Amino acid sequence: MNATTPDRREEFAAERWARFRPITDGKSYIESLRGRAVTVYLFGEKVEEPVDHPIIRPSINALADTYDLAVEDPELATAHSELIGAPVNRFLHIVGSPQDLVMKNRMQRRMGQRTGTCFQRCAGLDTISVLHSITYDIDRKHGTTYHQRYLDFMKQAQANNIIVGAGMTDPKGDRSKRPSEQADPDLFMHVSRRTERGLYVRGAKAHMTGGLNSHWICVMPTMNLGPADSDYAVVGMVPGDAEGLTYIYGRQSCDTRALEKGEIDKGNARFGGQETLVVFDDVFIPWEHVLMNGEYAFAQEMVARFTSYHRASYVCKTGLGDVMVGAAAAIAEYNGADQASHVKDKLVEMTHLNETIFSSAIASAHEAKPLESGIYMNDGMLANVCKHNVTRFPYEISRLAQDLAGGLMVTLPSEADFEHDVAGPILRKYFQGRANVPVEHRQRMLRLIENMTLGRNAVGYLTESLHGAGSPQAQRIQILRQMEVERKKGYAEELAGVGRNEERAG
Amino acid sequence: MNATTPDRREEFAAERWARFRPITDGKSYIESLRGRAVTVYLFGEKVEEPVDHPIIRPSINALADTYDLAVEDPELATAHSELIGAPVNRFLHIVGSPQDLVMKNRMQRRMGQRTGTCFQRCAGLDTISVLHSITYDIDRKHGTTYHQRYLDFMKQAQANNIIVGAGMTDPKGDRSKRPSEQADPDLFMHVSRRTERGLYVRGAKAHMTGGLNSHWICVMPTMNLGPADSDYAVVGMVPGDAEGLTYIYGRQSCDTRALEKGEIDKGNARFGGQETLVVFDDVFIPWEHVLMNGEYAFAQEMVARFTSYHRASYVCKTGLGDVMVGAAAAIAEYNGADQASHVKDKLVEMTHLNETIFSSAIASAHEAKPLESGIYMNDGMLANVCKHNVTRFPYEISRLAQDLAGGLMVTLPSEADFEHDVAGPILRKYFQGRANVPVEHRQRMLRLIENMTLGRNAVGYLTESLHGAGSPQAQRIQILRQMEVERKKGYAEELAGVGRNEERAG
Amino acid sequence: MNATTPDRREEFAAERWARFRPITDGKSYIESLRGRAVTVYLFGEKVEEPVDHPIIRPSINALADTYDLAVEDPELATAHSELIGAPVNRFLHIVGSPQDLVMKNRMQRRMGQRTGTCFQRCAGLDTISVLHSITYDIDRKHGTTYHQRYLDFMKQAQANNIIVGAGMTDPKGDRSKRPSEQADPDLFMHVSRRTERGLYVRGAKAHMTGGLNSHWICVMPTMNLGPADSDYAVVGMVPGDAEGLTYIYGRQSCDTRALEKGEIDKGNARFGGQETLVVFDDVFIPWEHVLMNGEYAFAQEMVARFTSYHRASYVCKTGLGDVMVGAAAAIAEYNGADQASHVKDKLVEMTHLNETIFSSAIASAHEAKPLESGIYMNDGMLANVCKHNVTRFPYEISRLAQDLAGGLMVTLPSEADFEHDVAGPILRKYFQGRANVPVEHRQRMLRLIENMTLGRNAVGYLTESLHGAGSPQAQRIQILRQMEVERKKGYAEELAGVGRNEERAG
Amino acid sequence: MNATTPDRREEFAAERWARFRPITDGKSYIESLRGRAVTVYLFGEKVEEPVDHPIIRPSINALADTYDLAVEDPELATAHSELIGAPVNRFLHIVGSPQDLVMKNRMQRRMGQRTGTCFQRCAGLDTISVLHSITYDIDRKHGTTYHQRYLDFMKQAQANNIIVGAGMTDPKGDRSKRPSEQADPDLFMHVSRRTERGLYVRGAKAHMTGGLNSHWICVMPTMNLGPADSDYAVVGMVPGDAEGLTYIYGRQSCDTRALEKGEIDKGNARFGGQETLVVFDDVFIPWEHVLMNGEYAFAQEMVARFTSYHRASYVCKTGLGDVMVGAAAAIAEYNGADQASHVKDKLVEMTHLNETIFSSAIASAHEAKPLESGIYMNDGMLANVCKHNVTRFPYEISRLAQDLAGGLMVTLPSEADFEHDVAGPILRKYFQGRANVPVEHRQRMLRLIENMTLGRNAVGYLTESLHGAGSPQAQRIQILRQMEVERKKGYAEELAGVGRNEERAG
Repeated sequence: MNATTPDRREEFAAERWARFRPITDGKSYIESLRGRAVTVYLFGEKVEEPVDHPIIRPSINALADTYDLAVEDPELATAHSELIGAPVNRFLHIVGSPQDLVMKNRMQRRMGQRTGTCFQRCAGLDTISVLHSITYDIDRKHGTTYHQRYLDFMKQAQANNIIVGAGMTDPKGDRSKRPSEQADPDLFMHVSRRTERGLYVRGAKAHMTGGLNSHWICVMPTMNLGPADSDYAVVGMVPGDAEGLTYIYGRQSCDTRALEKGEIDKGNARFGGQETLVVFDDVFIPWEHVLMNGEYAFAQEMVARFTSYHRASYVCKTGLGDVMVGAAAAIAEYNGADQASHVKDKLVEMTHLNETIFSSAIASAHEAKPLESGIYMNDGMLANVCKHNVTRFPYEISRLAQDLAGGLMVTLPSEADFEHDVAGPILRKYFQGRANVPVEHRQRMLRLIENMTLGRNAVGYLTESLHGAGSPQAQRIQILRQMEVERKKGYAEELAGVGRNEERAG
Repeated sequence: MNATTPDRREEFAAERWARFRPITDGKSYIESLRGRAVTVYLFGEKVEEPVDHPIIRPSINALADTYDLAVEDPELATAHSELIGAPVNRFLHIVGSPQDLVMKNRMQRRMGQRTGTCFQRCAGLDTISVLHSITYDIDRKHGTTYHQRYLDFMKQAQANNIIVGAGMTDPKGDRSKRPSEQADPDLFMHVSRRTERGLYVRGAKAHMTGGLNSHWICVMPTMNLGPADSDYAVVGMVPGDAEGLTYIYGRQSCDTRALEKGEIDKGNARFGGQETLVVFDDVFIPWEHVLMNGEYAFAQEMVARFTSYHRASYVCKTGLGDVMVGAAAAIAEYNGADQASHVKDKLVEMTHLNETIFSSAIASAHEAKPLESGIYMNDGMLANVCKHNVTRFPYEISRLAQDLAGGLMVTLPSEADFEHDVAGPILRKYFQGRANVPVEHRQRMLRLIENMTLGRNAVGYLTESLHGAGSPQAQRIQILRQMEVERKKGYAEELAGVGRNEERAG
Repeated sequence: MNATTPDRREEFAAERWARFRPITDGKSYIESLRGRAVTVYLFGEKVEEPVDHPIIRPSINALADTYDLAVEDPELATAHSELIGAPVNRFLHIVGSPQDLVMKNRMQRRMGQRTGTCFQRCAGLDTISVLHSITYDIDRKHGTTYHQRYLDFMKQAQANNIIVGAGMTDPKGDRSKRPSEQADPDLFMHVSRRTERGLYVRGAKAHMTGGLNSHWICVMPTMNLGPADSDYAVVGMVPGDAEGLTYIYGRQSCDTRALEKGEIDKGNARFGGQETLVVFDDVFIPWEHVLMNGEYAFAQEMVARFTSYHRASYVCKTGLGDVMVGAAAAIAEYNGADQASHVKDKLVEMTHLNETIFSSAIASAHEAKPLESGIYMNDGMLANVCKHNVTRFPYEISRLAQDLAGGLMVTLPSEADFEHDVAGPILRKYFQGRANVPVEHRQRMLRLIENMTLGRNAVGYLTESLHGAGSPQAQRIQILRQMEVERKKGYAEELAGVGRNEERAG
Repeated sequence: MNATTPDRREEFAAERWARFRPITDGKSYIESLRGRAVTVYLFGEKVEEPVDHPIIRPSINALADTYDLAVEDPELATAHSELIGAPVNRFLHIVGSPQDLVMKNRMQRRMGQRTGTCFQRCAGLDTISVLHSITYDIDRKHGTTYHQRYLDFMKQAQANNIIVGAGMTDPKGDRSKRPSEQADPDLFMHVSRRTERGLYVRGAKAHMTGGLNSHWICVMPTMNLGPADSDYAVVGMVPGDAEGLTYIYGRQSCDTRALEKGEIDKGNARFGGQETLVVFDDVFIPWEHVLMNGEYAFAQEMVARFTSYHRASYVCKTGLGDVMVGAAAAIAEYNGADQASHVKDKLVEMTHLNETIFSSAIASAHEAKPLESGIYMNDGMLANVCKHNVTRFPYEISRLAQDLAGGLMVTLPSEADFEHDVAGPILRKYFQGRANVPVEHRQRMLRLIENMTLGRNAVGYLTESLHGAGSPQAQRIQILRQMEVERKKGYAEELAGVGRNEERAG
């Protein structure tokens, strides 16, 4: 960063909202991303226009669908915002009631059904929610004005119907050391400089979901912080095309199929997920977009509330689970095996597991409690239970889908072979199954199951189900903390006739 | 039945409600059962006074606790009845909203925590709910007046604060034959005679929960019926001490420990469950207490709605699960092993499974929909999912509790040995564990875990969790019916780019 | 212990073998136990003659069956002993080859099928095996003569065809302290005095399987010992009726059904298990029966080898598993449900799990390696894997058996009710299932399943499967130790093209 | 096929063995494949030289390693052939004893450890075994001379050290119809013509493992056949480059990474599996290579024996499981998390599951029984149990490996980005974990785990584990057939005191 850069960065910041035009649907969302001067690396090259890159586009399409759903099903995917006195996309809505949380979960399941992938907008949504109460709480403690800044930002965000992404996970370096103890201070994002107009942040956010597809990124701490880490206690809003940002695209299983001719082998040609490393090389944030600035003691609670919201958001995987059930049922039908009792039984098991996940999210929403700032937070225990089942059941659902698909799922020749003059007719001859079902239907359904269990969207359906919003052990730790074991010991001791030894109880 | 019996039976019926005095608490409930002329067999003998029988009494205590809870925690265990314009015990409340269903589930969990057993009142509660809508629906179709009779009955029931038990499960005989096809017509309950004043029923209801402890029994069909089975389509209210009733008490694992001196080896000395065979030898029901009389076509829907309510009622097992978590944590502490990471991890797993069950009940309640009669029914899919997890998780929770308990749980000498002059001091010397924890505490906690995993209350926590409200396969059939596989195939085909073949879809 | 006692005890010891007459079959085994002056407490009373006590006798019958099997199937249950040049009961045979270990496992499974319970002879058998090599190894290190003493003892044991029990598990007291650190030194067995003729031991052995039914008890350490614990490093052979011994009988679920009239409700009227607390109040062991005396460094290896043998011995549970499969299939047939596809599928699952357990034992035997003393030890990893599956699968098999049994398993009235003039005919009328199957068959099969899943033999099939030969965590620790993770990292690094960093490897 | 073709085909057949030179190691094996005039389609193009195709070569390397192992560890991977009086590669050895079967299993596990993929040689090995006994049995029944032809073939095969592949799975078409009932007769392979010198076969073999890499293909029926299917009852040996053969290559997850520059992103750059559709367009087989010709009644037994051998061969997956355990342990170490108790616990669980699979294979081998022809067949029940666990445990092992890997496994940027001037240093800065561990090590290990759980070798480790040698339901059917439920009912009835009703038993 040379000496002149800061000023330019600071000036640029002043006009941040001016560039936006309200987004109305998926198409206008896609256009809104075009022509931004973002620095993106993918396969060792800078990407000229991400919107048109065949690997990146499916991830943009998934986000675009969050706009189209709002148009097609406004009852589900919009909500009335008191902030601007108008309906807003539910992904920008502040959760004002348990029912808002329930509707959020239903919309997430629906989006999963429509896209069969990670549509990348939940972390941002949950960030919006958590900032409402955290800024409120910091202000009450420290007399700051973060909450008003937050409300101002949200008015613009809702009015312009933009996407906010969440930049949370720091690279972390040596996991046995705290942020301020790392050999390289940048391994956790921190304030590198403060000026009259704002502050600069340095560091990176790893596996950021839909990073490149967001209009704004909210950076925030990833773990609890101590007094020595106060420069790491920073929350701020950064435009996705801010100067100093670099995106390096994460590769996925089978990602390059998106570069191939034809659409069948892609499995799900239209939709995909996206995770990027986002590097912040002294990115400027003006004070009006700073929502935490050194109040390290709130980092832990912020993370706790965020995970409580976000672990229930993994209910989206039940939408993908619905697709898996449907795909398994369809392929069984194409194979002529749909009447076998073991086939039905496996579909039942898949459904049972999927609905079990759904239950915990809905229950967690129902049991929501109000926070001081006036909004609601879903039940933490049940959100963790939801996510913990998500770390298990999609794997079993996926295994059962592969069982019903048959081995052809991993031995089917390429679409290009089906197009070949000689090979094509041979393949159509020998892969004919049940009469009346075109071979291409089998191809397409097998490729969809491959896509979701081994390919590009398996990344979202399986591995992200494990690690997103915290890996399994993170949920177990939360369950341990919240399980109120002393109360439960009391029940047992009451029934067993054990008077608690006072010394132990004391 | 001799010739004079019917008249006496019919006359007796006229004054059925006259004998009752409003029950105010557990104590007055127990008194209300005393002195009834019921015929009960247990261990080959007629029981003189069931209330004082040491094997039967714990099951009565469990029901008594449903009254005490209403006194101690009225917000949880009572509700305002519009029917009588006064608060009523929630076990007699008609579910008027999703929140009523949620409160029902919370109360059930709480009762499980308090008693550690099956408190026997849920089948009756769910019967009350289902009759509201079914009588309404029959009336609409057939111009009958069942619904008003039902409301009249419920007013009395609520005013007198009595217990209604559910008599549903017929012995069934040869399972490949319908009711009217059985060699012995009594293997399903049926109308044996109709008179001016009412009708007579013959047959039996198997494993009836808390049968002997109910003031009234509602008899109803156990499965769908056809035109040939119309005499089997009968619903009616019968006092628990009606003439012609015979109870034969089901025995349970370790039941005779209740006859032993001392209370420790009982594990849970105060509370237990109860299942009886109830035989109806031409029991009379006056018309005002008849709620179905031949409308066979409604049997299937009645059973379907009942199981939908009742499968979610198995959330009670999460209360027992809380006791198991507490007992396992307590014994680990007494053994000095509570800080081991694998011990904590097992408690987390037990909690996770338990809360997963809880989730589905709450979600099912939240997703309740109104019926024509104006009350609410919880979501059927999620209720089945709830119950289906109940057929699995308590077994694993129980296994983990036994793991934490240690082998001593099944090798501990008897309480009498601990009382013996010579053996007692030896046992106290050698079974001393962690300092400051009396050996008796270990004894008691081990006996509680034995009680719930092998003994008397394992019947309720394990086997009844499998079979109550339908065995696992019954849930799988319901899940199959409700899983909307065609809709889900549509999601998969949309993403895979498969246009559905019209012939197949047609 | 008064001053004159020791001498008497020491003199008595001289004639220890003289009293025995070779046992020929189950009947003569039972007679061999009669008239011994053992001190036994049960239900707060001294038992006059354990052989005739209805609660104790089934456990004796199970051991008697090990003799009868040898008569009925000598190929399976006897082996040629080179020690005495004659065939011996395989439970007294020293394992000279992998095939000996395989035959041991087959015999154990067969015994499980015959008795449906713990037949209590495996710990002794595995003790015999481990002492062969441990005495040999101690002698090589310390120049002692334990191995010859062991061989002399075994000659007598084989010639007299007696039962050796294993006294291993100390009460342990405060688990955070070593033997020599306990407040009460007796919480681990130790040498209390040494004389010219031998030594005295004090302490107790907890949950000793079949303790009371053994002719001799081998006492041995239960864990690794340090220099400070050398008095705890003692192995010796003690007659089951030695002076100073006291047995306190462990109670089991449903144990008192053995005192009831009739045999049906017992489930398995003939066979049961037994665990006792055995107290050693300065019991004398002459030098010729002492096999370790202070060589504390060998305790750990002794325990390790014992558990390696013994964890594979839990293959016996596959014999009980066979009974469970058979019982579930039989009750499904009696209920008329045996042709349902889900019923067959559950039987397949039960079988699959059961044979998986069997596999690990046989594989462990096959992979046996010779020890220095010339005998064989089965593979430790696979023995731990075998036992670890035993801590899981019987619970699932049991759950599935309860599923197929139906709820009647826990609501069936007592045998006495079936005998009653009035109640009996009612019960037979209403519990008639499939034509041609007597109601009594259903009763008996349901009681057997109750016996093995909740009742007396559930203790052995379930809880002992968890804790016998070490609880689940003990197996996990062994698997961790033996899993050769560095070798496996090497495979991964080779394929991944990672050269191991020398600093880390060093 | 024009008129002149047959003659040329028949003449060509005469010199079939003449072209081979004994193969000595992996290198000479690879050379042996070069220059064959095979017709192969891949990605819509004919492949000129499969040996040099970057997607195909890893599968050839895996087979080559079976030769190198024989050189490096002859005790494990060679055996003495009585047929030629010399040592042969164990993949060509006829199993003459249980120990041969055990050694086969050990070799398979070792190959899995070395290659981390399907090395494609087991189906051929198991075909060799099954033909020994089946040809013997047909000869005994029909007086044919197949067995001698088989022995003659095997002498050449062993002497030339070639690879035999198994062509078994027909496309099957409409699964509700038998071979002779299909609309297109070619959907099952059949004899299309018989001449003086031999016969011609038409049809295809689907997902043939390593088809293209075999010197000879043995075609054989895939299911039981009836009299109408006698033309489908054909077994014969066909050179891999026979005229009339066409291979169409099956694509795999991430297959095109093999075409990318660099080796890191390949995960396992050296080894991969292969499945092809092999089309037989009137391929000629001279009589000396025909081993079944219409004896349809033997098809069922042939398939049964083949699956018995082959289901135990899935023990190879324990070798891949060892790699997974190692990879998970390595990445945990690189991440600095290897001392966490939950990490160790997950490694233990992975190992436990992996060794459970191993157990069943070894036990199945140990329990082998001799067949009439003099060779041994492993135990069918335990082989099915082995394979059935293979359809479950690798999925859980894979899930646990992904858990320990962390989310970076699916968000890591491409190798090309790491090579880029600007992006590379950023990535190395931010992905530095534990000190002293190069970032490249993390990259490589994450890519290996991706390869085995989502990528190219997940095909073999997961989906093929489900479907190879029969899908899960096929094993359940075999377990059902072999579980001897009547014998087990007998055990239960004996213990329950139930005399079997003669009518039922009859």
